[in-house]
Amino acid sequence: MTASTGTSKALTSQVELGELATGQALTAPLFSFKGSDSAAPSVYIQANVHGAEVQGNAVIYQLMTLLESYTILGDIRCLPLANPLGINQKSGEFTLGRFDPITGVNWNREYYEHADIISNIPQWCELNQGLSDAELVAAFRELLTRSCQQRIANSWGISTGHRLAVTLQSMAHDADIVLDLHTGPKSAKHLYCPEYDVEAAGFFSIPFSLIIPNGFGGAMDEAAFYPWWQLQQYCATQQRQFDVPVAAFTLELASQERIDMADAKEDALGILAYLSHRGVIEEKVLPAEMPRWGCYLKDYKKFHAPKAGLVEYCAEVGKPLAAGEPLVTLLRLDQYGSEQALTSVSLPCDCVPVLHFASASVHQGTELYKVMTNVFEIK
Amino acid sequence: MTASTGTSKALTSQVELGELATGQALTAPLFSFKGSDSAAPSVYIQANVHGAEVQGNAVIYQLMTLLESYTILGDIRCLPLANPLGINQKSGEFTLGRFDPITGVNWNREYYEHADIISNIPQWCELNQGLSDAELVAAFRELLTRSCQQRIANSWGISTGHRLAVTLQSMAHDADIVLDLHTGPKSAKHLYCPEYDVEAAGFFSIPFSLIIPNGFGGAMDEAAFYPWWQLQQYCATQQRQFDVPVAAFTLELASQERIDMADAKEDALGILAYLSHRGVIEEKVLPAEMPRWGCYLKDYKKFHAPKAGLVEYCAEVGKPLAAGEPLVTLLRLDQYGSEQALTSVSLPCDCVPVLHFASASVHQGTELYKVMTNVFEIK
Amino acid sequence: MTASTGTSKALTSQVELGELATGQALTAPLFSFKGSDSAAPSVYIQANVHGAEVQGNAVIYQLMTLLESYTILGDIRCLPLANPLGINQKSGEFTLGRFDPITGVNWNREYYEHADIISNIPQWCELNQGLSDAELVAAFRELLTRSCQQRIANSWGISTGHRLAVTLQSMAHDADIVLDLHTGPKSAKHLYCPEYDVEAAGFFSIPFSLIIPNGFGGAMDEAAFYPWWQLQQYCATQQRQFDVPVAAFTLELASQERIDMADAKEDALGILAYLSHRGVIEEKVLPAEMPRWGCYLKDYKKFHAPKAGLVEYCAEVGKPLAAGEPLVTLLRLDQYGSEQALTSVSLPCDCVPVLHFASASVHQGTELYKVMTNVFEIK
Amino acid sequence: MTASTGTSKALTSQVELGELATGQALTAPLFSFKGSDSAAPSVYIQANVHGAEVQGNAVIYQLMTLLESYTILGDIRCLPLANPLGINQKSGEFTLGRFDPITGVNWNREYYEHADIISNIPQWCELNQGLSDAELVAAFRELLTRSCQQRIANSWGISTGHRLAVTLQSMAHDADIVLDLHTGPKSAKHLYCPEYDVEAAGFFSIPFSLIIPNGFGGAMDEAAFYPWWQLQQYCATQQRQFDVPVAAFTLELASQERIDMADAKEDALGILAYLSHRGVIEEKVLPAEMPRWGCYLKDYKKFHAPKAGLVEYCAEVGKPLAAGEPLVTLLRLDQYGSEQALTSVSLPCDCVPVLHFASASVHQGTELYKVMTNVFEIK
Repeated sequence: MTASTGTSKALTSQVELGELATGQALTAPLFSFKGSDSAAPSVYIQANVHGAEVQGNAVIYQLMTLLESYTILGDIRCLPLANPLGINQKSGEFTLGRFDPITGVNWNREYYEHADIISNIPQWCELNQGLSDAELVAAFRELLTRSCQQRIANSWGISTGHRLAVTLQSMAHDADIVLDLHTGPKSAKHLYCPEYDVEAAGFFSIPFSLIIPNGFGGAMDEAAFYPWWQLQQYCATQQRQFDVPVAAFTLELASQERIDMADAKEDALGILAYLSHRGVIEEKVLPAEMPRWGCYLKDYKKFHAPKAGLVEYCAEVGKPLAAGEPLVTLLRLDQYGSEQALTSVSLPCDCVPVLHFASASVHQGTELYKVMTNVFEIK
Repeated sequence: MTASTGTSKALTSQVELGELATGQALTAPLFSFKGSDSAAPSVYIQANVHGAEVQGNAVIYQLMTLLESYTILGDIRCLPLANPLGINQKSGEFTLGRFDPITGVNWNREYYEHADIISNIPQWCELNQGLSDAELVAAFRELLTRSCQQRIANSWGISTGHRLAVTLQSMAHDADIVLDLHTGPKSAKHLYCPEYDVEAAGFFSIPFSLIIPNGFGGAMDEAAFYPWWQLQQYCATQQRQFDVPVAAFTLELASQERIDMADAKEDALGILAYLSHRGVIEEKVLPAEMPRWGCYLKDYKKFHAPKAGLVEYCAEVGKPLAAGEPLVTLLRLDQYGSEQALTSVSLPCDCVPVLHFASASVHQGTELYKVMTNVFEIK
Repeated sequence: MTASTGTSKALTSQVELGELATGQALTAPLFSFKGSDSAAPSVYIQANVHGAEVQGNAVIYQLMTLLESYTILGDIRCLPLANPLGINQKSGEFTLGRFDPITGVNWNREYYEHADIISNIPQWCELNQGLSDAELVAAFRELLTRSCQQRIANSWGISTGHRLAVTLQSMAHDADIVLDLHTGPKSAKHLYCPEYDVEAAGFFSIPFSLIIPNGFGGAMDEAAFYPWWQLQQYCATQQRQFDVPVAAFTLELASQERIDMADAKEDALGILAYLSHRGVIEEKVLPAEMPRWGCYLKDYKKFHAPKAGLVEYCAEVGKPLAAGEPLVTLLRLDQYGSEQALTSVSLPCDCVPVLHFASASVHQGTELYKVMTNVFEIK
Repeated sequence: MTASTGTSKALTSQVELGELATGQALTAPLFSFKGSDSAAPSVYIQANVHGAEVQGNAVIYQLMTLLESYTILGDIRCLPLANPLGINQKSGEFTLGRFDPITGVNWNREYYEHADIISNIPQWCELNQGLSDAELVAAFRELLTRSCQQRIANSWGISTGHRLAVTLQSMAHDADIVLDLHTGPKSAKHLYCPEYDVEAAGFFSIPFSLIIPNGFGGAMDEAAFYPWWQLQQYCATQQRQFDVPVAAFTLELASQERIDMADAKEDALGILAYLSHRGVIEEKVLPAEMPRWGCYLKDYKKFHAPKAGLVEYCAEVGKPLAAGEPLVTLLRLDQYGSEQALTSVSLPCDCVPVLHFASASVHQGTELYKVMTNVFEIK
């Protein structure tokens, strides 16, 4: 990480994330805004960990441009283009950036669980019971960061994707607020939001929220909040009450392989509204007025192609779809002349389709749609 | 090729196109409509030689459905899903179907030139000078078909892609009219039309036509018309005058990875209008009324990314773009803080953008747009 | 599954495993030998679930050819070419068959855990306590098979890879002995063997065995034995003693992208020795004499490239390597002129390298070698 | 191109070859040795234009190390890792570096023909008839170099692969001797040698040579010698006699995905023998003694898989194979029970197999072997 001068506001540096076969360093640009109030929450925002999901970079661009006109209280670090290997990996006319092309492992499932730290929380808390809440948070943060560094220094080495993930995670652990900017394939905007932090869903310019358990499944948001949630839960059992010190969200900002600068500004304003609410900037920025809808992860359903064929995606993402209404039309030319040549497929329950597959021809079993069921309004 | 019962109108069979590593046959369904008038032109229509370009299949579906209500004079054969290897080859969420994944060779550049036949036309014509025009055409057709069969039977074998192409070509040589249904990446509808047959461009439901030389570059349309054009040209020098006996076109039916049944019906009606004009069906079907624009291939320009970056495609395909108007916006977050972070790129001349690249992040040199320049109206 | 006549000994049928985008069925050939003694154990052998790992097919060929000369007591079913989608998926000159090209999920991690069945074992045993051991096994087997069928019939569909896996698993559940034939990338022969069944390692023609925990991690061998091991463990706590009724192993038969018919016969003879030991054939076939070495999975180490570069693989697979001896040489031409240009890398402990990566140029973090440490002799 | 200090002998710099989507520069290291005699021929050596063909880098390493002990008369420039995009592009466990992953175009078919220069040679020679031979060569060299620069500066941009190729070619045009280091898939060492320069084949440590026409097919060697051969041919018709001023060869140094430092030294010594013969170094280095065999390109045959299946490659590369001897064994398990299950394939004529396909399972039509026929000894 070598520092150099950036804009009037942001300090620019390069983060080293690995090394390509030819020896070239994998790097991403890091933009750091220094806040004026050390008590204000600090922020880490990254984008484009999945290679085709580029719109988050445009959102970071618009956010940084907006920030030039605001009073920044908390430190803000932005890391666009976070996965250069994934972004640069093309296959035909598209970006093959969802998983490591060598191992197949999803780039957003390689974060580190800190299992040892978490299983050791009771002992650690006992050892550190003399600390104030702020000191406890600082000590735990240092523990997480050091654990990441040790992981990277493993004497048998670690995988390419794990190195990337843990390097990013190490920066995320420095922050109180972590935003990981993604997109779906063909998708409506939606937010992954942990159960303990549902209120936050009201600030972003995002109409749909998935309420996820407070657990760990390998993604950045979970990696950022899960150890803290575990710490907070344990302390509560010991009569030590505090809010979960870290907030972490994954924002799915519409479709992949798409840059839309105007829409990026909308999402930048939504992030600004949340940062304003949290006191990261001094000025009041109100969230956009829109109805916001939620769904628990258990009610978020994947629909897999019941048979192979060519697909007309009939259901629009982000629009309610009643049970029995056409979801897709499946065209099977090999069955021309029979009733199977053109069939309409629908779902047995009401839902809101959130995203659909990117290609118009599918093998049997391809995930065609993800839909929210049992949707409720978030007030 | 094994026949089985199809609809009331079309006879269904399977064409064998190769064999996969596991031993499974590569096949495509062939639908044959028998015409009532042996003097009417015969037709061969194929779709989806490039794996991601699926819309032509929907057009064939709509055309076959429409044909049930018409009086068919000439034989019509339809081969959708013509490249099963390319269609089934996925890479991430998209179809990697533009080239053979082993060799990189474009599936639509593997057709056979019949170089020996063409260089031997003078001698062949002398040998066959006693034939009537119709007999000459029949004999030449047989020559081409036999040449394809010999090619496939080559004792050293032929490549996977060449086998596919020559098998398809062999069916095409049986017809007087050959339509190869493709799409662009993100594309307006356009037609590849040989110079000698520009008039045909007025019948399809396609606003833009590329007028291509009467030569051979490896594609199906060229493979179908080029030997005939050579024959016709030579005969003309020998005082034997007839029209080029074969018409062949590539139709680019908007964007890849897209099935739109309603739009497919529009294009099926356009094809029907052309077939009606040529006397393949008895009924009169008028072409859709629309302005139609042409451009010579030499004026069809590729614009390659002058630098790498994230791309907002500003120019809409199919809409005229004046010199200096924004074509794309290039976002370079690594250069945030400089004027290079967000730059607008335009072209020095008026044009009509016809298609653009599918991905929103590009290496330097990626083909961003293809545009028509020196566009003229086709009456 | 449609039956047809096979050889004098084996009945040939086709198993349907899914459907490709073009509508073609994904199928694999199934060869069934009927045993003469219904009390003898039944066998299921599959090969080539990872697309590039073809040698198991040759082993099945040699085994079936050998079986023509033996008296078959137990039913034997062989399914070569088990993953046609993976086998046929090429990328450049190699087979990209280790994971689903759309999702990245390893084809050998998609088997079904039967979590509900396993958590419900106590209740199920109580309900069925009146059954004899043989009846209990038959009832549990039916439970597993039915659970697979229900899984496949899920009303929201299941993924392509899960459908393949559960269909294969359903056949495996019918058998008492399950052999899954794989290979490594560049690899010595080795066996994955569950702790409870280490004795079996002495029969195959395989010098190295990995002793794995009796748990579930998604692979076929585990999917086949794990529910039975759980059942056996629970019954033991209830004073009902029997051996784990199902044996399941993964055989790694040297390197991928390699067919060697002579070597395949060696491995077929090894399998025959195990089947003889288990009473599946009447004749006595002795195992090959060779030292056999074991290592616990916890001592099976992955070594990841500490830096990127070009790799000369110095350590031969299957040969002991002392601490400090050269494992690989890393060539970094970008650092020519410094001591970093050519470096030798070794390990801090004695080991037996079992397999190494297939490519000679690696990103930082690529898994270079897997090595056994704390190796012991299996008697 | 920015210079920095290298070893005592070579000056190290970076060549810019393009830009990745994230903005990172594509670069390759260039090592320049300054010769002491300006009259001695200059040399350009590159390696690894095909991403999986890494051994040439090791040869360059060994050559540069050897050169430290020799007296260098002519300038020598070495560019290993010449195609960073291709080298870093993995797909599964292999390098997908033979063609541009976006367009499918072979990286070694993108060089520039200089068609305008070549068709204009008569006029250019007339204009420059006053020049001495040395001046003519210098002027023509400058013409070629400038033409490359203009090509790169094309106002509509050029493709990623063409930019790479023309940038490399521009450096090659500066040299009198051009060596392009490749490998085959599984291959014996062989040399591509133009007809006019067959004598050179006796110096490299390479037993087989393909004698190619003096024409242009898109590869580096042809791009380097073809304009000069055209110039020399034209001048000869004008009574101006001189040898073709540029020698260019493609060396195929055994198999891809392989680094062997000891073997690399053998090939480095072979190159040194040629450079010694040409007077690039002062010392005498004799070629290795070995029989050397030639074959005209027209007699270099590709054998394509007559049917699909699993392949045992029986014929060893570099060893003569008599007509009728087994080339490959094809295993078709879906046909077990018939005579088609295991078939041996041979060729109808004597040959020397030079290379074979890398994968052991093939679609029908895959290029299985390339073999030399009508082989003769080169003295």
